[in-house]
Amino acid sequence: MTIRIGSGVDFHQLAEGRELWLGGILVPHSKGAVGHSDADVLLHAICDAMLGAACLGDIGVHFPDTSMEFKGIDSKILLQRTSKLIKDEGYEVVNIDSTLCLQAPKIKPFVPQMQEAIAGILGITVKDVSIKATTTEQLGFVGREEGVVAYASVLLRGV
Amino acid sequence: MTIRIGSGVDFHQLAEGRELWLGGILVPHSKGAVGHSDADVLLHAICDAMLGAACLGDIGVHFPDTSMEFKGIDSKILLQRTSKLIKDEGYEVVNIDSTLCLQAPKIKPFVPQMQEAIAGILGITVKDVSIKATTTEQLGFVGREEGVVAYASVLLRGV
Amino acid sequence: MTIRIGSGVDFHQLAEGRELWLGGILVPHSKGAVGHSDADVLLHAICDAMLGAACLGDIGVHFPDTSMEFKGIDSKILLQRTSKLIKDEGYEVVNIDSTLCLQAPKIKPFVPQMQEAIAGILGITVKDVSIKATTTEQLGFVGREEGVVAYASVLLRGV
Ligand SMILES: [Zn+2]
Ligand SMILES: [Zn+2]
Ligand SMILES: [Zn+2]
Repeated sequence: MTIRIGSGVDFHQLAEGRELWLGGILVPHSKGAVGHSDADVLLHAICDAMLGAACLGDIGVHFPDTSMEFKGIDSKILLQRTSKLIKDEGYEVVNIDSTLCLQAPKIKPFVPQMQEAIAGILGITVKDVSIKATTTEQLGFVGREEGVVAYASVLLRGV
Repeated sequence: MTIRIGSGVDFHQLAEGRELWLGGILVPHSKGAVGHSDADVLLHAICDAMLGAACLGDIGVHFPDTSMEFKGIDSKILLQRTSKLIKDEGYEVVNIDSTLCLQAPKIKPFVPQMQEAIAGILGITVKDVSIKATTTEQLGFVGREEGVVAYASVLLRGV
Repeated sequence: MTIRIGSGVDFHQLAEGRELWLGGILVPHSKGAVGHSDADVLLHAICDAMLGAACLGDIGVHFPDTSMEFKGIDSKILLQRTSKLIKDEGYEVVNIDSTLCLQAPKIKPFVPQMQEAIAGILGITVKDVSIKATTTEQLGFVGREEGVVAYASVLLRGV
């Protein structure tokens, strides 16, 4: 059995007047994430981890933020395309673990919906999509609510 | 064989007049970590990685910092409980790798004690508990000694 | 089959008048990385991930920045030594995934050269060395171009 590791990290600024998309879900909050797409930091980190595990480059290579094709795009579409890319390479997801670093809001109530959205797109079960969250204890740009960071780890196996 | 990946990251502020618990060991230093529990950033990152690999939520779900039960608690107890949670789910630890990011003090002399503490609780050998350390080269809140960060990665296998 | 996980993170300041070595390649830029060695943040993160997976300590233990032996050293030599250390321990690399966090320059054009340099040293194929890159969207010390960060993840297998 071939097994491969991937890891991703993504960053977005927070600003008023933007929507906060996290894990494919619109999370009600006074601030939203800034970006060329819908700026879903969690889905971007997961896409990058999957691409990295398959050694297919990164999200910027496949979905450049200079392309009008991806302006305001729903990142669930990017995850769907990433899923196809790794399947075409002969891989499937074993499991995903991820961590959202943000000072507010509490995302725990939204985690089951995020898991369902991601698992549905990838064709895996929700038990193979872990989403954790932490504040940075007021430290740094995350602590000042200037930005949000997500980390993701993934195992792929050859099919 | 089922194998699963998990990863964790944790943050705590540093302040004078607090103890610095790292990896289950009290490290002598002019500053300590601030938190609801003993604020052991390394054990928290490891717990989160283990919970994530088993898709059991995160440390905040299991050990909420709003609960008096966990006020000032020794994080080794949290690690013990996390160990039981993943065993109940049918998993055991393959190996753990971790990195402490802090500007001072040098933690190298304490690493063997930390490895023994963690391996003892998890029922694994010290060769399966890697603890690394780095400064951030004076960069950011870690570099200004305002806080400490820990990253942990883990593989679990189904038993 | 024995399989083990490792992860590394490294930080370096950026300053004018220094060379920017990344992934074993000299990248033309107005700023370079500051450090005791050639300050190659990507190779250091990869070394640390490999050492961590094999539970052999960290890069600071093996290549101390207080030693004249490593002053200005090409980090490809450190990667070569790390490779020998893990082989002596009975391991080989399954795959590596990594992410460079830097605001500028664009490193995409240099990735194939970096992959070849690293794969050549480790005796693996370029498809087993993934190098991704991201900005931090102007956030933090990376966003202010004061520093650069690299993350690396690795799987090792027992041979
Ligand atoms: Zn993004
Ligand atoms: Zn904590
Ligand atoms: Zn370094």
